[in-house]
Amino acid sequence: MTGGFFNSRFVPRPSHVLEIETMPAGFRLGGISCGVKDADSAVLDLGAVASDCEGTVSAARFCDSGVLAAPVVVTRERCDLHAIRAVVANSGNANAATGEAGIAEAVRVQEAAAAALGLSPREVAVASTGVIGVLLPGERIAAAVPALTERLSAEGLENFAAAIKTTDALDKHVQLQVTLPSGAVSLSAACKGAGMISPRFATMLCFVQTDAVLTAPSADALLGAAVRRSFDRVSVDGQLSTNDTVILMASGESGVHVEPGSEDEAQLGEALDALALQLAVRIVADGEGARRIARVHVRGAGEESVSRVARSVANSPLVKAALFGGDPNWGRVAQAIGAALPGTAPLRFDVAIEGIAVARDGAGVEHDTAALARAVSGEEILYEIDLPGAGAEAELFFSDLSYDYVKINAEYTT
Amino acid sequence: MTGGFFNSRFVPRPSHVLEIETMPAGFRLGGISCGVKDADSAVLDLGAVASDCEGTVSAARFCDSGVLAAPVVVTRERCDLHAIRAVVANSGNANAATGEAGIAEAVRVQEAAAAALGLSPREVAVASTGVIGVLLPGERIAAAVPALTERLSAEGLENFAAAIKTTDALDKHVQLQVTLPSGAVSLSAACKGAGMISPRFATMLCFVQTDAVLTAPSADALLGAAVRRSFDRVSVDGQLSTNDTVILMASGESGVHVEPGSEDEAQLGEALDALALQLAVRIVADGEGARRIARVHVRGAGEESVSRVARSVANSPLVKAALFGGDPNWGRVAQAIGAALPGTAPLRFDVAIEGIAVARDGAGVEHDTAALARAVSGEEILYEIDLPGAGAEAELFFSDLSYDYVKINAEYTT
Repeated sequence: MTGGFFNSRFVPRPSHVLEIETMPAGFRLGGISCGVKDADSAVLDLGAVASDCEGTVSAARFCDSGVLAAPVVVTRERCDLHAIRAVVANSGNANAATGEAGIAEAVRVQEAAAAALGLSPREVAVASTGVIGVLLPGERIAAAVPALTERLSAEGLENFAAAIKTTDALDKHVQLQVTLPSGAVSLSAACKGAGMISPRFATMLCFVQTDAVLTAPSADALLGAAVRRSFDRVSVDGQLSTNDTVILMASGESGVHVEPGSEDEAQLGEALDALALQLAVRIVADGEGARRIARVHVRGAGEESVSRVARSVANSPLVKAALFGGDPNWGRVAQAIGAALPGTAPLRFDVAIEGIAVARDGAGVEHDTAALARAVSGEEILYEIDLPGAGAEAELFFSDLSYDYVKINAEYTT
Repeated sequence: MTGGFFNSRFVPRPSHVLEIETMPAGFRLGGISCGVKDADSAVLDLGAVASDCEGTVSAARFCDSGVLAAPVVVTRERCDLHAIRAVVANSGNANAATGEAGIAEAVRVQEAAAAALGLSPREVAVASTGVIGVLLPGERIAAAVPALTERLSAEGLENFAAAIKTTDALDKHVQLQVTLPSGAVSLSAACKGAGMISPRFATMLCFVQTDAVLTAPSADALLGAAVRRSFDRVSVDGQLSTNDTVILMASGESGVHVEPGSEDEAQLGEALDALALQLAVRIVADGEGARRIARVHVRGAGEESVSRVARSVANSPLVKAALFGGDPNWGRVAQAIGAALPGTAPLRFDVAIEGIAVARDGAGVEHDTAALARAVSGEEILYEIDLPGAGAEAELFFSDLSYDYVKINAEYTT
């Protein structure tokens, strides 16, 4: 990995994108301590981001669990998802599996934030992350909201990012300048997540801001594509969260109009894709105890087949433990491929690890085992799998399975 | 757990079943060392079981991976699966992902065994377990076959069981007397497996013998039901093997006729189910490093839904790590339920752990946390999940996720 935000070889920085130190125009944000995460310390656990611009457009994506957290239900059902002006988010409590009472607490926070910001509740999204099955202390949070909204500023990204963290070790916020044909716009994001691997049910939250002038359909299309190419492509342990939320807000303050179907839109999309994928890869790298991350790339016939194989390899504890151990055990990859495609034997598959061909037509081939052992000792490992046929491909990024994963997840007691 | 073969509280011994010390009449078996597992030691790695009776009927089941091992392909395609007279099985090499050359080596072993036993190759099944992706040394095995077949005896169960082991720590063989209305028959079995968790790709093999007189359709139906209720219901790490093989052989030597649809058949089926389930639970308990095993029982509407939820809970590394840690973290069960049933929120589910209700109608309920903590410190833990509706149920047995799982699977190098 290299320095700076784009530090994975899997995510090259687009040439029209630069890291900067300022927020997109029109946004204020911040984070305070309100005692949800730890009643006895001043650790930040409540954050907000707000746009000052009436014409702000937005787009949102959520996870699709049968056990959806109350803030997801409230945001999805009670907000105008194309016109969100503010987000208030807490860590320390996921407000999930909390029933009708949880919904009421989420609404309480939403209404307090709307009142403090002079907005309609329909313009205020809520998000939570932390322990599951414990009712959110909404009254405590609502009481803290005015102090939070008073302190929002264009310099608040770091505090906002800190307030939504749970067990994250790596920073996941950035400010970028994106040079489009029609002019420069800014893009910023704060993200949290270490997969579903946290003992306290870490969740993936991501809030993205831009000062580009976007139509609501364009914002929705750009965000949808970016999420599909990033957060939908990572696995720490294959566990779907109850709280995942991604929200894009566009203030329009740059005055640079990004028209649907334009080159501006394509290039903003490219920047957003890279931003989201780098954040997603960082979530994988942040899997507690993770030593290595990997990309599995599958080619062949049939979207369903390549996708199933990619997920089977990425979620295999055998492949992941081998990745942790720096063990070039390609037989485990073969096993995961076969498990994903029952009824297809004899399957003619090829496997290459870091460019070294280890299996062809379903059987092992001679290879330089010393070179392979060296190749899998790096920080980022590439597995390439070819299935019969052509026309479809899928990729996933995943972490290894380490002692610390077990330690962290075994030794926590509710 | 209690002493004897039936030592799980999840598998009561049927009252008409007793442990004995003799094989069903008509079978000889044994195991020798042929240097596949370890060329420098006399560790047993080649076993065989044969019936002396011409009217022997059989039934077989295999895994359904897209990457099927050569012995599975050879047995499935070249044997008369209803008239198998002998099985020859090796450990130390799975002969999987070995292409056409692997098929040829498996056939070589099959033909050598048929010649040594005076049988047709169509009557001889082959099975392998061990490292994947390495060609089976068929010539070496074939050369050792005559020495093996000469030594087969009615006292050979222990050697046979040892020869098919890889990383198994617990014994998985037994001899039983089954008292049927029409008379007593014997049942024996040797099984190997520690899930797919072995560094050398442990596999599940199980060979069952009886001296009951069975029709081929009856043998097939009894074995199919027993496998569905046992080996299809366990998960160590959710990883499907390339080599799984289960074969039932009935010599008929007891003279006790078990007619299709009779009470004899029902009671023999009950014995076979208990035998297979106890072996399956022992495979789970044998997952390297496993400290605890669990049973998840799901009730509700829809076979597909209850089955998906059971698998999601049983395969969740978060649930499994909590099980290892003796952590009564029911939120992880809630998360696994939700992940299995996208689009159903808000899902009204109930969860009880060891009989203590922890969630009802999708939300946590007050419970005695001290009692719950005590309850999850035992060796066998029961999770009961109720989904909306009724009419369907599913159960799975699974192991925890331990440090040793990671250690064993990370530190092995091909």
